[in-house]
This record gives sequence, structure tokens and C-alpha cells, in this order.
Amino acid sequence: MTGPGRPRLVESRRPGASGREEILDAAGELFVTRGFAATSTRAIADSVGIRQASLYHHFPTKESILAALLDSTVEPSLRYARTLADLGGDPALLLWALTAGDSWNLLTDRSNLGRLYLIPEADAAGLSAFHAKRRELHGIYRTLAAQVVADPKDPRCALPVRVTESVIAIRADDPTMAAPADGPLPASAGLVADSALRILGIEPTDALREAGTALVATHRHAAPPPGDDRPE
Amino acid sequence: MTGPGRPRLVESRRPGASGREEILDAAGELFVTRGFAATSTRAIADSVGIRQASLYHHFPTKESILAALLDSTVEPSLRYARTLADLGGDPALLLWALTAGDSWNLLTDRSNLGRLYLIPEADAAGLSAFHAKRRELHGIYRTLAAQVVADPKDPRCALPVRVTESVIAIRADDPTMAAPADGPLPASAGLVADSALRILGIEPTDALREAGTALVATHRHAAPPPGDDRPE
Repeated sequence: MTGPGRPRLVESRRPGASGREEILDAAGELFVTRGFAATSTRAIADSVGIRQASLYHHFPTKESILAALLDSTVEPSLRYARTLADLGGDPALLLWALTAGDSWNLLTDRSNLGRLYLIPEADAAGLSAFHAKRRELHGIYRTLAAQVVADPKDPRCALPVRVTESVIAIRADDPTMAAPADGPLPASAGLVADSALRILGIEPTDALREAGTALVATHRHAAPPPGDDRPE
Repeated sequence: MTGPGRPRLVESRRPGASGREEILDAAGELFVTRGFAATSTRAIADSVGIRQASLYHHFPTKESILAALLDSTVEPSLRYARTLADLGGDPALLLWALTAGDSWNLLTDRSNLGRLYLIPEADAAGLSAFHAKRRELHGIYRTLAAQVVADPKDPRCALPVRVTESVIAIRADDPTMAAPADGPLPASAGLVADSALRILGIEPTDALREAGTALVATHRHAAPPPGDDRPE
């Protein structure tokens, strides 16, 4: 047995260390390739090779699977963004590092889950925690951008996060743009970060890119600081 | 009677001069707010106030409605892009005008139909005409961007069209960003066009913006030239 519930019907064929992660992996693939409404919990269980009862042990509803998947697309980036904002220092450098690390995150999940952001079911009430996190993440982008241009009312402040999220459409049109989660910063993530600064009128220097790449490497997988009691 | 098929059951309550346009308007709203899979042709017919048989007179399948909707999001912009490309001249000016006019188009349709670009059903074979047009439109963006940076291999050439399409997510998060189809160029469309040039290292001047705004006004609604026999 790999976890709670009934014994598996078949060998695991999914990435993921736990039954929960295998369910998320299978559901993400099916939601993106067939659609949320067209995917049953039965189809997800079949794809993992478990019984539906085992799936319900982890997730009471299909909506709760969608909530967990969408959360997984913002939670690591939000934690990373909070870490960068707490560091302080040159806002252009912090914004470059945020844009590079966040777009890297969006390039790594196996199924390009950001495609689910715009489906109507993502507006459901049960997804309010995801939306709150995404709003907080967007707010950190805006705050850093406002510091870069020294004007919180500059309408350009809304754009850097949109450039980051454009990697979702880039991957949807060209699946080869997906990048491994580890290894060096993908060139496309650096390009997106350069673009975010250029929109704000800053031409990134090689020194800024180097320092930004180091920040990404050090902090992108940072755990929450001990005693961090901000609501997640 | 407002067109072919049976008499209407109720007064028209939809924008659109024809039964076909009313069906598209209703279907677009339902696909975006409830989802494609969750919307039946019956629900679309009910929403228009016509019988299902009248709907089938215009569209044999639900997929053909989706195809017509997605086509409506690229066809005017592609026609406009071809017109600009045929004009020739300063590529930065042409790219500014393309980005401004295309993002304006995406800001005007009532239901933000670009949200449907990433749904799995948009990958269906019946939508190949839409995908071909969108690829041609993206290609014109790329060609103009390559002329601006004088290097067709510069990876930044892929980004201007992504900034344009980011207005889809901006509208999804904030429906007040929608803009009327007529009247002055929306400020957000100008901002997107400025950003596309800045990503390529060009700071738009007021003279360029003025000339670009004039190009948008003159050519955005241009009809295909007489004798234009390029395949649509």
C-alpha cells in the first residue's frame, strides 16, 4: 500500500511521492487536455490505477482537486515573492528575480496548469483561497514595479505579472517551451524578467541579471521562515 | 421572422443584427461563464429565444459555433495586420499600430472570447482554420518585431503578441477593463503597444504614438482590398 485507502489495483505509473500527488498529477493532465467538466473522478481514479473510494479519501470533490491544483501554481511563487519582498534592496533587482523565478515555476509543472486560470469553474467560491494568494502575489509585483518607477499610479505597474503569466500561452502553443524544475534558469524565464524591467523603462545590466539569477537560485525553493504565521 | 427557420418565440434580447449573430452572442457568453462542455445547444437556443431547429439551421454542431466565435477574435485583426504589413514603412510604427489595434479588438468583444483560446476543445481538428489565422497573425507580429530589432533570431520577437493577448487575462481579472469598439483608442491598448516596443528596446515617442493612433483609426476596420484572393 502506498497510503491510506484500498490496495492499488496496478503499479504506480505517475510521478509523485504519495497517492495524493499522483491523483493531482493525473487530474491536472485530464483537466488540461480533456477539460474539467468532461473529466469524472472515475476517470481520474482509473488514470492513477486506484479505486474511486481511495480518491475520495484524499479529495471529497472534483472541485477540491481543482482547488489543490490551482493552489500549487501560486503557493510556491507567493512564498518566494514574500521572501524577496522581505529582503528589501534594489526593487528592479527584486522584480527581475521575482519575474524570473515565478515564470520558471509556470514553465515546470507537467501539465501547464495555468491554462485552468481562465476556465469558468475557477471562479467558484471554493477557490477563494487560490484567488486570495494570486491577488497577494500580483500585489507584490505591483508594489515592486511602483518602487521601480517611483509612482504607484503608473499604469505600467500592472504589466510585469502579465508578462510572467504569458508563459502559460507560450507553452500552450509550443509544449517544447516547458522547462525542468531544477538546473540553470531557463533562458525564456530570463527573457521574461528582462521584458518586465524594459516595460518599466529599465534596461537590465549583466550585473543585475547575475545578481537576480543568484537570488532565484537561493530563494526559489525557500521554506517558509520558522514562526511564519501569515495566513496561507 | 428575423431570418431563416421558425418564427421567434420571444422578442430579440441580444445584440446582433441577425439570428446568426444573436446565437454567437449567447453562445459566447455561456461558453465563457459556464464552460463549453457544460453548455448545450438547447441552452444556447433558450438564451436567444429560438427553437433548437432554428439554431441548427445556422450551426450544425456546437463545435461549429465555437469555431465561428474563435474566428471572430482573429479575423478582423488578421485583416488589419495584413493591411499594415502591406503599407510598409517604419516597422516600429507598424508594430505599435498592430499591437494597439489588436489589443483594442480583444478588449471589445462582449464576453472576452479570448478566454476560450486555452480550453482543450479549442485544439479540435475542426478549428484548424482559426489556428491557421492565429498563426499568420502571430507571424506578422514576429516579422515586424524582427525588422525592429534587425535580427529574426532575437527571442524577444515572440513577446509583443503575448503582451497583446495579456489583455485577455487583464479583462478576466477586472471586467471593467473592457472597452467600446468605437471612440478613441483605449489607454490600455496604447499602454500595451508602448510595452511591445519597449520590450524590443524602443522608447515610443509622442510622434510615433500619434502616427500609430492615426493608423489604427484609418485601418482597423478596413475591408479586404478588392481582388484580395488570399485564402482566409
